[in-house]
Amino acid sequence: MTLLLTPVPNFPLVNAGDDLAGIIVHSVNSSDLHPKDGDIWILAQKIVSKAENRLVNINRIIPSARAFEIANKTKKDPRFVELVLSESSKVLRASPGTLIVEHHCGFICANAGIDHSNVMSDEGNPDDWFLLLPENPDASAYRIRCDLEEAYKCRFGVLIIDSHGRAWRNGTVGITIGLSGLPGVVDLRGRPDMFGYRLQITQIGAADELAAAASLVMGQADEGKPVVLARGFPYALRDGKLDEILRPEENDLFR
Amino acid sequence: MTLLLTPVPNFPLVNAGDDLAGIIVHSVNSSDLHPKDGDIWILAQKIVSKAENRLVNINRIIPSARAFEIANKTKKDPRFVELVLSESSKVLRASPGTLIVEHHCGFICANAGIDHSNVMSDEGNPDDWFLLLPENPDASAYRIRCDLEEAYKCRFGVLIIDSHGRAWRNGTVGITIGLSGLPGVVDLRGRPDMFGYRLQITQIGAADELAAAASLVMGQADEGKPVVLARGFPYALRDGKLDEILRPEENDLFR
Repeated sequence: MTLLLTPVPNFPLVNAGDDLAGIIVHSVNSSDLHPKDGDIWILAQKIVSKAENRLVNINRIIPSARAFEIANKTKKDPRFVELVLSESSKVLRASPGTLIVEHHCGFICANAGIDHSNVMSDEGNPDDWFLLLPENPDASAYRIRCDLEEAYKCRFGVLIIDSHGRAWRNGTVGITIGLSGLPGVVDLRGRPDMFGYRLQITQIGAADELAAAASLVMGQADEGKPVVLARGFPYALRDGKLDEILRPEENDLFR
Repeated sequence: MTLLLTPVPNFPLVNAGDDLAGIIVHSVNSSDLHPKDGDIWILAQKIVSKAENRLVNINRIIPSARAFEIANKTKKDPRFVELVLSESSKVLRASPGTLIVEHHCGFICANAGIDHSNVMSDEGNPDDWFLLLPENPDASAYRIRCDLEEAYKCRFGVLIIDSHGRAWRNGTVGITIGLSGLPGVVDLRGRPDMFGYRLQITQIGAADELAAAASLVMGQADEGKPVVLARGFPYALRDGKLDEILRPEENDLFR
């Protein structure tokens, strides 16, 4: 089966308090997209964060002693570091230009996913505004999924994605930060391969593979395509959670 | 633009010495696929390795003292460990059940990408046979691309992919091990975002995003869909190389 990933066209700018599902339905209605049962909606983290009013003005942040210390190591603004620390449970690496943390949600990423590009607020200097990740991306995905399922009377999956760097490879790739209605990982343990062996690879990162695919379609600069509709996801839908994608620290060889 | 990923149907089993481009053309001819300029062919590593006769019988391997030592740590067969070492330039982690190395080609992966499932040879006990990665995946991709471009008189990209685990996340995802005719990473440095800021994310791992997308379509068990045709890759084709995707060790915070 063909996997199709289509950006929702004519997607407007999102503001705090906006009803994302409503905007999606409106944009889809003026397009030739026809959502159907089993489709998966992939949303860029930025529009979810904006709708949830996760913008912070850096002038309101008072850095702690620890933020000053890490700012010194990383050559970053101590207020920005304080913001990162407030979103994180652990600092993994701090070196000039780089701050890798464990986000409160459990994943490892640079700068706690706090973003500056494509962020705008009405108030003050746009350079002062930063966008935090959604507070509970699984819950955000669930709410949006319920609204979309209600609007279309279909069973959907919803994936919220961000672009992360990798430990050993250049270039960012789209990864899952929240999901609802699709598996995070697909367990193949015990399934035979083509020759009847039991398969060695045990788990497929299906949600992250879909996140990467959608990220390719969204682009990262001025494209303005923050929602992608995916058709042909090859695994059965079920109620997945971010937790299943996160490797427990005790199994982590690379902290 | 929609990104479409379609598996080439009715793909036969591949044997040592097979002409992969010829098999692809033959399979496509009996399908309703119509390859066109700018399409990208994504091939599973396994069929490239098989065509290049990279099968090794483990009974022919004599483990070194170092292999015995690492086998003891990892609880793996010393002959298998010797095979992994012979394909690797460095060992990054060795713990019970886990052996993470830098492959000769430069990427970090488990077991040097040496595989057991879906491997079969005519000779002896099938359990004894292991499949090494292609010797030079970029060169393999280039050869297959030349053959396919000649057959269809089109400009194509070719990507050879494998499934790798990640440092902090569960589940394997498709990643690039060799490429020709498409960018490994896409550099956006200096490009403005929607509000005219210079973009903070500098490089997109476009080939790896496409690899993940194709891997989703291929599946990992008994599907037998080792070639995927991608249409709608959103970046300009150029002659990329694996090297551009690999982070130099001096910039690596997680070895």
